[in-house]
Amino acid sequence: MASPLPTHDDVVQAAARIKGHVRQTPVLRSRALDEIAGAELFIKAECLQDTGSFKLRGATNRLLQIPQSQRAAGVVAFSSGNHAQGVARAAKLLNMPALIVMPSDAPQVKINGVLADGAEIHSYDRVAEGREEIAADIARQRGAVLVSSFNDPAIIAGQGTCGLEFIEQMEATGQQLDHLICCTGGGGLISGIALALEGVSPDTQIWTAEPQEHDDWRRSLEADEIVSNAPGIRSICDAILTPSPGPLTWAIGRRLLSGGCRATDAQVCEAMRQAFRHLKLVTEPGGAAALAAALYALPSQAVGKRIGVVITGANVDASQFADILRG
Amino acid sequence: MASPLPTHDDVVQAAARIKGHVRQTPVLRSRALDEIAGAELFIKAECLQDTGSFKLRGATNRLLQIPQSQRAAGVVAFSSGNHAQGVARAAKLLNMPALIVMPSDAPQVKINGVLADGAEIHSYDRVAEGREEIAADIARQRGAVLVSSFNDPAIIAGQGTCGLEFIEQMEATGQQLDHLICCTGGGGLISGIALALEGVSPDTQIWTAEPQEHDDWRRSLEADEIVSNAPGIRSICDAILTPSPGPLTWAIGRRLLSGGCRATDAQVCEAMRQAFRHLKLVTEPGGAAALAAALYALPSQAVGKRIGVVITGANVDASQFADILRG
Repeated sequence: MASPLPTHDDVVQAAARIKGHVRQTPVLRSRALDEIAGAELFIKAECLQDTGSFKLRGATNRLLQIPQSQRAAGVVAFSSGNHAQGVARAAKLLNMPALIVMPSDAPQVKINGVLADGAEIHSYDRVAEGREEIAADIARQRGAVLVSSFNDPAIIAGQGTCGLEFIEQMEATGQQLDHLICCTGGGGLISGIALALEGVSPDTQIWTAEPQEHDDWRRSLEADEIVSNAPGIRSICDAILTPSPGPLTWAIGRRLLSGGCRATDAQVCEAMRQAFRHLKLVTEPGGAAALAAALYALPSQAVGKRIGVVITGANVDASQFADILRG
Repeated sequence: MASPLPTHDDVVQAAARIKGHVRQTPVLRSRALDEIAGAELFIKAECLQDTGSFKLRGATNRLLQIPQSQRAAGVVAFSSGNHAQGVARAAKLLNMPALIVMPSDAPQVKINGVLADGAEIHSYDRVAEGREEIAADIARQRGAVLVSSFNDPAIIAGQGTCGLEFIEQMEATGQQLDHLICCTGGGGLISGIALALEGVSPDTQIWTAEPQEHDDWRRSLEADEIVSNAPGIRSICDAILTPSPGPLTWAIGRRLLSGGCRATDAQVCEAMRQAFRHLKLVTEPGGAAALAAALYALPSQAVGKRIGVVITGANVDASQFADILRG
């Protein structure tokens, strides 16, 4: 059964639905960063979202649409951490039980966030086990709703509210974005943002940002078909190591995205230091990939233009952040 | 010649004057921090202000009122760093030359911020030399305007815009602050905020937050007269180590403040770690003193209430921040 693709209107409805449950996050500027990038950067600090990432938007939109009669059985999700925290928080809000399937090597800060919201965790080995099967089995046993991290119209529409909000904030300053760069794993956020902008800022060109060797979206967009990453490729960007675009996010992204940017782990670490220094923000590696791309790997057609940059998450362990600050 | 005391109306006029030159900073919530504090915290993240501290508000308000005919001779200021950056940035905005008298042990990040905005720095020895005399001499030689960091009606009114904005943001949520805690050095910010709240939230009780052994405001308010700190007392909170309340800020604070809170350096470091973990904010020690007081030294009458907490700055060297994260 194919899910229907979400539309711009679904994003608008999601924004109305989740209002009051999520934060409006600020758009920051820095002349120092503009000079490094050689462009005007408008930085959407979605890392300041409650739970430390944008994932709360989609999870809240999804869970609010679960019928009252199904809520007692709860929800199940699989996630390396940010979607986990989004689902755990949304479930707590609605008094629903939640179980999250998380890799055993997930950052402690993400595990703690899930536990603090009262969700259960089922740990698995990222290399040896298939998280989708584990989660589906548990959901079936419990009669619980399985909440996909990106391949779900309600999740995509919910994440897209970040883009709608971004454009409203730009309109308040009388400025338009020529380009927008967004950290991309499964593509729930960027495809939602693309739907949002299709209705309110259709001339903005939208680019993925991915780890250098984990650039499935960039290569998929070039090939005009879904391309996967070779298994086993690692990057510091734990939050966005998804094997390939999902069917729904790809169907949207293929139509609305301009291409992909890549950043090395070293560039991501340097972007995290720049965000610390000039924006006063804590960022996690996967959340800073778009900033790294804007600063160090900007597409040539974006040089000198107005660039929206979405910083997507900040759930990083203190010891790792301290290591990165020290270079 | 005594300066006239600024009023609530001066804060309102300052807000109109500096609009567009400063950021609106967000108000953040965290249930985890509420649980630690035993109160509802509404955290004004003024550390996200351009230049990394609230000081830009007052400096911009002050410099915008310098007559055109006096601007070519420029401005002089003395500061451990945040006021320095505020004045340097405001001067750059108005194409005025600026010279800042800074202690030789100021954090590198603050020195870099001043230099990046094209200001000159005159270094002095914090223990052996008097910064006020040095700055006054240089200003006299140049015919430049000496911009006080807190004992100036236009500076106080400018900083007060942070309080006006805070209350507007609270009104948008339909909630009132029972108490407000603010990091306090010379008292420019807290006295400005007190003037702001006098007009728009007169029932809010306002408290200083100071380093444990450097609590001149707390003791002054108890004694109902200006009391100084013993010379040579150190604290990690470099930004707020002012010897005593200033004449103007004291005249306002004496009338409008409820009392003072104190935080140890260890509590300040723990508050910085909590802000990292739960708010995803970079904070500097002096900027996190109010959060430390709210979490660990809340006045008994504030327990269980709605507390406004102003985080005032984030200009901290990466190596120091990394050390503090590691505990």
